[in-house]
Amino acid sequence: MRISRFYLPTLREVPAEAEVISHQLMLRGGMLRKLSAGIYSWLPLGLRVLRRVEGIIRDEMNRAGALEVLLPAVQPAELWQESGRWDVYGKELLRFRDRHEREFGFGPTAEEVIVDLIRGELRSWRQLPVNLYQIGTKFRDEIRPRFGVMRGREFGMKDAYSFDGDEKGAEKSYKDMYVAYSRIFARCGLKFRSVEAASGPIGGKFSHEFMVLAETGEDVIVVCSKCNYAANTEKAEVAPPETVEADSELALEKIDTPFKRTIEEVCGYLELPPQKLVKTLIYDTDQGTVAAMVRGDRELNPNKLQSLINADSLAMSTPDVILEVTGGPLGFSGPVGLKIPIYVDAEVAAMKNYVTGANEEGVHYLNTNMGRDFKATKVADLRVAAEGDRCAHCRSPLSFIRGIEVGHIFKLGEKYSKPMNATFLDPEGKEKFFVMGCYGIGTGRTVASAIEQNHDASGVVWPMSMAPFQVAIVPINFKEEKTRQAAEQLEAELEKLGVDVLLDDREESPGVKFKDVDIIGVPLRIVIGGKTLAKDSVEFKLRWQQNKDLVPVGQAVAKVR
Amino acid sequence: MRISRFYLPTLREVPAEAEVISHQLMLRGGMLRKLSAGIYSWLPLGLRVLRRVEGIIRDEMNRAGALEVLLPAVQPAELWQESGRWDVYGKELLRFRDRHEREFGFGPTAEEVIVDLIRGELRSWRQLPVNLYQIGTKFRDEIRPRFGVMRGREFGMKDAYSFDGDEKGAEKSYKDMYVAYSRIFARCGLKFRSVEAASGPIGGKFSHEFMVLAETGEDVIVVCSKCNYAANTEKAEVAPPETVEADSELALEKIDTPFKRTIEEVCGYLELPPQKLVKTLIYDTDQGTVAAMVRGDRELNPNKLQSLINADSLAMSTPDVILEVTGGPLGFSGPVGLKIPIYVDAEVAAMKNYVTGANEEGVHYLNTNMGRDFKATKVADLRVAAEGDRCAHCRSPLSFIRGIEVGHIFKLGEKYSKPMNATFLDPEGKEKFFVMGCYGIGTGRTVASAIEQNHDASGVVWPMSMAPFQVAIVPINFKEEKTRQAAEQLEAELEKLGVDVLLDDREESPGVKFKDVDIIGVPLRIVIGGKTLAKDSVEFKLRWQQNKDLVPVGQAVAKVR
Repeated sequence: MRISRFYLPTLREVPAEAEVISHQLMLRGGMLRKLSAGIYSWLPLGLRVLRRVEGIIRDEMNRAGALEVLLPAVQPAELWQESGRWDVYGKELLRFRDRHEREFGFGPTAEEVIVDLIRGELRSWRQLPVNLYQIGTKFRDEIRPRFGVMRGREFGMKDAYSFDGDEKGAEKSYKDMYVAYSRIFARCGLKFRSVEAASGPIGGKFSHEFMVLAETGEDVIVVCSKCNYAANTEKAEVAPPETVEADSELALEKIDTPFKRTIEEVCGYLELPPQKLVKTLIYDTDQGTVAAMVRGDRELNPNKLQSLINADSLAMSTPDVILEVTGGPLGFSGPVGLKIPIYVDAEVAAMKNYVTGANEEGVHYLNTNMGRDFKATKVADLRVAAEGDRCAHCRSPLSFIRGIEVGHIFKLGEKYSKPMNATFLDPEGKEKFFVMGCYGIGTGRTVASAIEQNHDASGVVWPMSMAPFQVAIVPINFKEEKTRQAAEQLEAELEKLGVDVLLDDREESPGVKFKDVDIIGVPLRIVIGGKTLAKDSVEFKLRWQQNKDLVPVGQAVAKVR
Repeated sequence: MRISRFYLPTLREVPAEAEVISHQLMLRGGMLRKLSAGIYSWLPLGLRVLRRVEGIIRDEMNRAGALEVLLPAVQPAELWQESGRWDVYGKELLRFRDRHEREFGFGPTAEEVIVDLIRGELRSWRQLPVNLYQIGTKFRDEIRPRFGVMRGREFGMKDAYSFDGDEKGAEKSYKDMYVAYSRIFARCGLKFRSVEAASGPIGGKFSHEFMVLAETGEDVIVVCSKCNYAANTEKAEVAPPETVEADSELALEKIDTPFKRTIEEVCGYLELPPQKLVKTLIYDTDQGTVAAMVRGDRELNPNKLQSLINADSLAMSTPDVILEVTGGPLGFSGPVGLKIPIYVDAEVAAMKNYVTGANEEGVHYLNTNMGRDFKATKVADLRVAAEGDRCAHCRSPLSFIRGIEVGHIFKLGEKYSKPMNATFLDPEGKEKFFVMGCYGIGTGRTVASAIEQNHDASGVVWPMSMAPFQVAIVPINFKEEKTRQAAEQLEAELEKLGVDVLLDDREESPGVKFKDVDIIGVPLRIVIGGKTLAKDSVEFKLRWQQNKDLVPVGQAVAKVR
């Protein structure tokens, strides 16, 4: 490809709209342009990278036995009503009516559509397992789209859905996808980790996220320094304290803390560190209103609480509800005298003589103790993992690294097949619900995360398998006959080998040309100029290295290979 | 690919929802399933065909120097307001509001988006020409979607947009696309014709449609039996009569035709053939109200009238307007005494002594004659071409064949660049509007039209380049050891050659297997069974032939090649 025939509007300035490096470089490198908030056009260079990622995904999905389909973007409301998601998905689902006033949504995922597609047609256990995938455009009306295609509203995704006859089959399908995903990100040339994850709004029982490691990542990954354990912060388990505090229990004592509501205020007033306070938080769930207790400096992990009590919904209670169930206002809740179930973080269970709210405006208790002053309904790991915590599996210290979620796999079980009544006949001729899994990869986000992980001050440093062009030929002066001939001959020979070559045939200064090649991150730059040609050589430079090698013209093709 | 691992839900019955053969066979062959009216899911087999078409398109677009991009489906209303299409596009544009109540549309085409993308960035004549294309999903909220993907609401399309600095450049871009389109449909193995077309709602000056020829096609193509002329019925020009009727002009005479309003009623009452009547039709246009005259048995072609008077809009007048401008009711309009411009079809201009309305309830004129009784503002070709008409270029008889529009190319000129103020600097440093073209191919429709053109009573007969699999291996009994070995060896050798092979490894009767291979239209069927293997042979059959050839096992691979 000649640059003069390519549409490559590179920018010298960092665009004001872009906060993160991948967004900046995708704009500066002429890969991406914004159409509207969270909605982007892919220019030819960016699309070449996206297509490479899609190609690797397609290849590995096919290898794993999955079959490609193409499902509609415009999905009828009826199906979402059947699964129950129409009412719970909220404003992230872009909804509209057609000319006949029928309701539709722009699909953010396709569980309903795929279940509707196979139910009634996939009838026999003999046809299982089936895993169908597609690569295409999705829409999620994010309240705050940002970071370019990293968190866009319209975005590219590979989504796959597996159908099995039983749990064992579904586990195999899940594992096959786990392996395929590992191969995909490895082939993309990315440093990544798979981590245990909470399954969130798509639901299901079990899930893993695939995280591209990058210091600029939005997500925190909790990894064990010794065993293989890794999880996202929503999921990461922590070991309980090894010993209970040995202090003897002091007498429970009411103390006035006028107008002191927050942990900081109460600590300041009582001259105690937050480690001596315990927060009691009140939640509304579909299982009723419950209380949960964590140490004053800790954060409760609502996913852990929700899965502990097996709740479908969980939200913090309003002041009215808190007043009703505790007798006191928001900010003064405590376990003493509480009539609702009390779930206690394992760390709190090991504490002695701590401060809690007294369910009374402006009053706290000193020297609260579990067992004596209140009964725990259950003690469990309920808090967000933090620095200093230890692995729940091997008690080694946990560490915290940053990453970008690019893939997510879920065991769905019967979550969709049951409400949508999707069944098959098992070998005994009995109707059974399909056991499903679903598997997503953000294609555009994979491209952006590759940049977050692989860049320097001059631009992108693509892994070879994702590079839009593998080789850039930069003639110092393309008008000079000998240079031109050498450049064109090299271009032709490399293209014959199947190498994607970008030849910079513009009348620009070498400096401008070098800068563009660096921004767009072509792995190998070959400079052709009069000086080196006089020595019958050309100059090779790898994007991630500083040194330049003189290579004899006759050996250039062989060396590229 | 083994059928047991493929998802291929073929149907024996013709589904009631499908009227046309392509829709029936795409459902029966397990290629397509309906999600909602005009919205379809592509199953693995159908998608393989669609991807072949997309591959050919991509290849030829790249060869022609076009560059692939990926533009958003969700397009902001502001851009459509700028171009003026937001108000005129009507209900076919699916419109919606995001969570912040901003208006968007689901793109049916992308002229506005592409102009917005390049304006301000593509600044110099040196960067021209640029031709950007994408292959993806579009939406048009058709009032009556039908025929499966032939006229769906969500549909696959390749759309391309060229930017040139002047008319000459734009013409070259147009011609390049004309050649690329011809190559695309030829490579798809389709019999097709390019025809001159009216440019319709996308607008512009000049356009061609590419029609796949099929008796079941919705469109009529008018072709000259001698010269190369071909056009659709909206555009097809006809030659004027060679001579004017020689009759002498009789006296104009008013005659009562009570309650006779239609051509049939008036003809019956006056005992005259419709060829002796002339219809006068009243139209509202942005150039004012006008009259147009065609012979009683002819149909006026509104596109011809619109382009004759260079109108942006044209619609039949209401009875109120007709009463106001003619003085009479609808159904009795005539040219005598009319004060508005009168456009006369060339055929009428050659007639003598005909019947016209008298602009009075229940009254007609006998023996009307142009020149004497009324003045023509202009005489032109204004009617829809019909059997018996002659070519406007060589006067040979025109004939009428049927086809399916699969591609459409337009010269847009400044239609979008001007209202959206998209300019570049010409060599003299002057701001100029881009001269644009746009070019579409219905990808799904191309698949369906291939079936309309290529099928028999047993199913699809794919052209080789579009076939989902090139070879089907059908073992009579896959459980039989020798058969299985031969089948698997042949499968492996063919796949090594890059041939797409479908191996039917199911425990079904040969009859069921043959029927499925026929429905899905695999070009070459290789049957492997005990009987022929005893002769060390396998049976070759081409889908479009009846005869079967015994081929020695050792020569099978070479023969496929």
